[in-house]
Amino acid sequence: MKRNISVEGLEQTPIEQQRIELVERKCLGHPDSLADGIAESISRALSAAYFEECGTVLHHNTDQGEIVAGESLPRFGGGVITKPIYVLLNGRATKTFDGANIPADTIAINAARNYIRTILPTLDMERDITVDSRMGMGSTDLRDVFRTCVTIPRANDTSFGVGHAPFSEAESVVRGVAAFIDEQLRPRYPVIGQDCKIMCLRDGDAITITLAIAFVDRYCASLNDYLDMKQLIKEQVESVAQGFTKRTVRVDVNTADDIANESIFLTVSGSSAEMGDDGSVGRGNRCNGLITPNRPMSMEATSGKNPINHIGKIYNLLATQIAQDCVTKVDGIEEMYVRLLSQIGHPIDQPHVASAQVITKPGTSMQAVAPEVEAIIDGWLANVTTITEKVIRGELKTF
Amino acid sequence: MKRNISVEGLEQTPIEQQRIELVERKCLGHPDSLADGIAESISRALSAAYFEECGTVLHHNTDQGEIVAGESLPRFGGGVITKPIYVLLNGRATKTFDGANIPADTIAINAARNYIRTILPTLDMERDITVDSRMGMGSTDLRDVFRTCVTIPRANDTSFGVGHAPFSEAESVVRGVAAFIDEQLRPRYPVIGQDCKIMCLRDGDAITITLAIAFVDRYCASLNDYLDMKQLIKEQVESVAQGFTKRTVRVDVNTADDIANESIFLTVSGSSAEMGDDGSVGRGNRCNGLITPNRPMSMEATSGKNPINHIGKIYNLLATQIAQDCVTKVDGIEEMYVRLLSQIGHPIDQPHVASAQVITKPGTSMQAVAPEVEAIIDGWLANVTTITEKVIRGELKTF
Amino acid sequence: MKRNISVEGLEQTPIEQQRIELVERKCLGHPDSLADGIAESISRALSAAYFEECGTVLHHNTDQGEIVAGESLPRFGGGVITKPIYVLLNGRATKTFDGANIPADTIAINAARNYIRTILPTLDMERDITVDSRMGMGSTDLRDVFRTCVTIPRANDTSFGVGHAPFSEAESVVRGVAAFIDEQLRPRYPVIGQDCKIMCLRDGDAITITLAIAFVDRYCASLNDYLDMKQLIKEQVESVAQGFTKRTVRVDVNTADDIANESIFLTVSGSSAEMGDDGSVGRGNRCNGLITPNRPMSMEATSGKNPINHIGKIYNLLATQIAQDCVTKVDGIEEMYVRLLSQIGHPIDQPHVASAQVITKPGTSMQAVAPEVEAIIDGWLANVTTITEKVIRGELKTF
Amino acid sequence: MKRNISVEGLEQTPIEQQRIELVERKCLGHPDSLADGIAESISRALSAAYFEECGTVLHHNTDQGEIVAGESLPRFGGGVITKPIYVLLNGRATKTFDGANIPADTIAINAARNYIRTILPTLDMERDITVDSRMGMGSTDLRDVFRTCVTIPRANDTSFGVGHAPFSEAESVVRGVAAFIDEQLRPRYPVIGQDCKIMCLRDGDAITITLAIAFVDRYCASLNDYLDMKQLIKEQVESVAQGFTKRTVRVDVNTADDIANESIFLTVSGSSAEMGDDGSVGRGNRCNGLITPNRPMSMEATSGKNPINHIGKIYNLLATQIAQDCVTKVDGIEEMYVRLLSQIGHPIDQPHVASAQVITKPGTSMQAVAPEVEAIIDGWLANVTTITEKVIRGELKTF
Repeated sequence: MKRNISVEGLEQTPIEQQRIELVERKCLGHPDSLADGIAESISRALSAAYFEECGTVLHHNTDQGEIVAGESLPRFGGGVITKPIYVLLNGRATKTFDGANIPADTIAINAARNYIRTILPTLDMERDITVDSRMGMGSTDLRDVFRTCVTIPRANDTSFGVGHAPFSEAESVVRGVAAFIDEQLRPRYPVIGQDCKIMCLRDGDAITITLAIAFVDRYCASLNDYLDMKQLIKEQVESVAQGFTKRTVRVDVNTADDIANESIFLTVSGSSAEMGDDGSVGRGNRCNGLITPNRPMSMEATSGKNPINHIGKIYNLLATQIAQDCVTKVDGIEEMYVRLLSQIGHPIDQPHVASAQVITKPGTSMQAVAPEVEAIIDGWLANVTTITEKVIRGELKTF
Repeated sequence: MKRNISVEGLEQTPIEQQRIELVERKCLGHPDSLADGIAESISRALSAAYFEECGTVLHHNTDQGEIVAGESLPRFGGGVITKPIYVLLNGRATKTFDGANIPADTIAINAARNYIRTILPTLDMERDITVDSRMGMGSTDLRDVFRTCVTIPRANDTSFGVGHAPFSEAESVVRGVAAFIDEQLRPRYPVIGQDCKIMCLRDGDAITITLAIAFVDRYCASLNDYLDMKQLIKEQVESVAQGFTKRTVRVDVNTADDIANESIFLTVSGSSAEMGDDGSVGRGNRCNGLITPNRPMSMEATSGKNPINHIGKIYNLLATQIAQDCVTKVDGIEEMYVRLLSQIGHPIDQPHVASAQVITKPGTSMQAVAPEVEAIIDGWLANVTTITEKVIRGELKTF
Repeated sequence: MKRNISVEGLEQTPIEQQRIELVERKCLGHPDSLADGIAESISRALSAAYFEECGTVLHHNTDQGEIVAGESLPRFGGGVITKPIYVLLNGRATKTFDGANIPADTIAINAARNYIRTILPTLDMERDITVDSRMGMGSTDLRDVFRTCVTIPRANDTSFGVGHAPFSEAESVVRGVAAFIDEQLRPRYPVIGQDCKIMCLRDGDAITITLAIAFVDRYCASLNDYLDMKQLIKEQVESVAQGFTKRTVRVDVNTADDIANESIFLTVSGSSAEMGDDGSVGRGNRCNGLITPNRPMSMEATSGKNPINHIGKIYNLLATQIAQDCVTKVDGIEEMYVRLLSQIGHPIDQPHVASAQVITKPGTSMQAVAPEVEAIIDGWLANVTTITEKVIRGELKTF
Repeated sequence: MKRNISVEGLEQTPIEQQRIELVERKCLGHPDSLADGIAESISRALSAAYFEECGTVLHHNTDQGEIVAGESLPRFGGGVITKPIYVLLNGRATKTFDGANIPADTIAINAARNYIRTILPTLDMERDITVDSRMGMGSTDLRDVFRTCVTIPRANDTSFGVGHAPFSEAESVVRGVAAFIDEQLRPRYPVIGQDCKIMCLRDGDAITITLAIAFVDRYCASLNDYLDMKQLIKEQVESVAQGFTKRTVRVDVNTADDIANESIFLTVSGSSAEMGDDGSVGRGNRCNGLITPNRPMSMEATSGKNPINHIGKIYNLLATQIAQDCVTKVDGIEEMYVRLLSQIGHPIDQPHVASAQVITKPGTSMQAVAPEVEAIIDGWLANVTTITEKVIRGELKTF
């Protein structure tokens, strides 16, 4: 069956020529990202367990969950968490299948705890956090989807995914800064917590990056240490950011600090989840790692959804892959937006519509790029299950 | 201080001329909307209580919470809920202030229950639902904001809001269909549950609306009743939708039904929250009531945030108001996008940037509209607290 | 098969001749009694539902549960509960049986709420209390007991029950005072809350009754009201208590009050569960309604256990019935103690041992009473299922 | 002020001459004992923290809590827990005092987890158990007790404690068997789980001990292993028990097993808490480690109560100490029962009454023993705070 693919030209001021652009990223220790990461960890652990036990990935949707903040008393040199973070796991998972029992609750709790330990290494996993599961069983209809489908899975919902390419300069700056902090800066300076929010405003050719970084108290001996580290971060991040752009870059760190009153962003664990900031799945980064109000976005949580037939996951990842692939392979594309819409119950390789909007570069016509774009889209859809496989192998990030 | 307002022209294919457009609305009984409504009800109840007790609205952020689905056995004529829906309330609220005690937990639970009763009138509030509060206290710094500010509140976060105007035809169709179902159809046919998801695809001039509607079992005597009602809804909604557009409209209802196996969307309460679908605050509609992946959107939950200084709420509502106001008052605007970015700790009438992108109508220049647009933006910012007042009076919807 | 019944004479100073005797009763609104009442309500509701759905009472043990106290701000004329009471329901119940679904969780929650409403009528059932169920499924082995047994159920455990008769004077005083307060005083004076602890010390011929009574604030206008009511209760209870005994009786009410600092036992709901006192099943009264450290007692919770095969319930009720029956029917018994010990898996009409210890009245020999006592015990055991029936019909109190 | 001490003779058939005697012990891994142990661990951890932070033990009552059983799939060689055990911590603790913050919630969770790890070493503390705290703050009045008292604490309640001495032969057998299993048998045979219930019936001179022991599956390779170990336990326990008595002893192990159907008492963790048996504080052993329905008992939970002014703890421990001390030091006492009754608000060294009932040995008159007994009681009361100190140092067991 021929797929319903629409490739159209879009006349639009390219993003780099728009005066104002906003880009945000919530790094791994931000409560919302923490929730995303837990959700995705659970889905991957369940997928692995299902595969081992049943030879296939059974129905589950763990794209839910709530991080209820604790209370803490951070202190230079090391404070304490006074009320534990409470993590509610919900969503649904198959717990029995054809006589086999899959301990979904304990698998989920274990996966969540292992993930949290990785992200917040100074958290005392025994005393500072409670992980509670209220996961339910999926509804029969949805589970039947898996039983009856032997080839291409059928969409679990009428929903859509969105993606774009290439990254704008501001987007690249944010991604680069995040990577720099995670891969270069924190390993050297463990005082830099995982809870880091990067907010980037490009106003014409002036880029302002506002960082909100949770400092880890045990690695911070004094207010002077704190101020020195802020300055160091500012300088190094400015330098790194400047590598991505010729525009001017200014970096501000923890602008809400009130130094006179020693009201600063100091934490025990490196995340504000310890002291007042709750987190939810699906409220932070989109699956390209960014929040981009200048770009089309999907509201669907990508993390935690099952990678077999959950459109909110597969189509967001796929739309992003398609856009990036087209931009890489097809000459003359300035910007590109991909939207994929499913119909519940239909095979996921046959979307209700696959829509590509292309802003061509000057001198390139739509006729020149459309056939290639359509072929790439068709190819990805024909091989849609590679997305599933990549997710299971952990090769695709979801937030 | 002069405000940082940017008004720029945007060259862009207007939405009506783009080939593919997606618009979605999750109606009031959808689990995500239910979570939003609960969150906003709590914020409004707390605001009222704070005002009565302290003469001002104290710090609270109840833009959190999780609906954990129950289990049910719907049956024609009336079934039962076998496992109650569990609602976790979290977020933060001020519980004591200057010697006064505000029973935030019981206020929140009461508000949540009153709201749920309104939306799901057939739910047995005693046996079918558990509402549990784990609300914490806000962090001191944030609460201090209220104590120290006597004029314009200061932003609680570095965050942004987004809005656009006018509504496209597809958007108007979705809004119109939702209103028709809520105000005309359900009052006559209580079998139509509140959990209704409207997914609209416009492909060129062909509009397809896919409705997923939870039927209420006690008002549905048989499978024939069910099928008759689906047909009735299809016909009436098609007729109503056609009133908003000259394009062709087709409506599909509950396309996932498997009639042969009597696998249909039948519920006890009118919401899938009773049987497997969890819900979270901030994952559904934006504050204009829609999910619009062809438009810029903010990831910020609007519902439940405090209306005093929480940017994620105020700036989303404000951006939408501004865009609508400009389109109404200024001639020659085809489409318009507004983005407002705050800086934590700064007065909310002084955003880091207020950005308007305008697509003018043929024959209208940016010079002709820019001054008026800027003036309107400036005026709204100068009176930013009217947003707060409107929210408290319940005049602005948040989802 | 002949039953293993032991009837032996006991040489012992009869209770009335012992110098010191302690008797306690926690009335219905005491947190521990509240927990017992909830547990028993659930068992009765489940039994009824099982009977209606399956024609028999299925396995369940709901002799668990925890009342986590809330917080409140009582005030003369009416205060508020600031943090709801949290009630955790656990234990086990059969949820599916031979294809039938029994909504055990919602039945349990409903029963609990209905019971609480009866006991604490001023509690706002929507805002002041959260009832949460974590009931599990029973283990297969135990449920099999029901499936395989067609005649006499088999004991679910190796456990015992204990009973005695007749009531001593102090015990009768406590029971009489409790009945007077519940049936006479509270109906006239709703200011008297249901949470009332009666502690009775008999020191020789001097009886001291210490009452701790939660007052209901909306029915108490002032400190003077409070003091007047304390005096009225003291006088009336002394008068009633004196009707049960020729010994002297003194009654003290709320002795912990610190009138100067207005630190008094004032509550919003009539129970200390609203403000700091947690409650658990099985920690209060034994099944005769009393706590009697001068008498043999069983640690087994009677409330909430299933009335079919749960020894901790059946044998405690049965031992009490037997003792009372013997004392009524057999002349010459001064006091009597009955202990029944089961063996897991054996028919409940064949206890491992049924032991009666009898203190005969002067001039009566054990030979004179033993045959009659043994016959009565044997008769009750032969008709052990009448206990089950009485429990299901609500004719036997469990605390 | 002279203390109200009553020493009276009791004419009573001594326990060894009564025909039927029942004694029970729930060992450390039994769900009720587990709850007791957790409660007491928390109290000790809080006491230590308070002492370190404030120089005194602040108000807390953690004699609450509920163990909600999980679900498991034990298998020879090692199975899995499929649903985690859920432990609810409640009760009350002081969280702030004179400006100091005591992280009571995290201290409690940590203490609970450390204790559980000790008792159930094969439990995976990350995946198989959830520990959740809903501990509240104590009421002001109770906390004030600590602030105002500089010498002898005042009773927190009108309550009583009970104790007896010496242990009967059956009691000694049960204690000896428990110690043998814990100290000799399990260290050699880890297949023997900590959840062991010892039920002892003495019928004249025939002692029957029924053991219900949870086996640990990873140390049990087959049904034959299981049966061999049952036989070994039976033989060794019979041999050890016989060392305490000249009466005949028979031991039965896991009598509910249905070998034909492989329905046996096999567990993953060594406790039935993993698979269906809930546990509560205060429902198991009294503070002498036994349940003795032939003896006076108190319903008060001893574990978890604060050791400063909580009568339900101090007077039970004290009554037991007094009785044992008297029997050791005073010649001619056959049996002895001690009851201590407090009055709320009065110093704990001045009980409302301290009552001793003594059965003297043949040839010993009450006049001969009464003065010594009274002196010993008076001495213990004068030094009542040594009980507190012993508890804090962990020298007194509470269950």
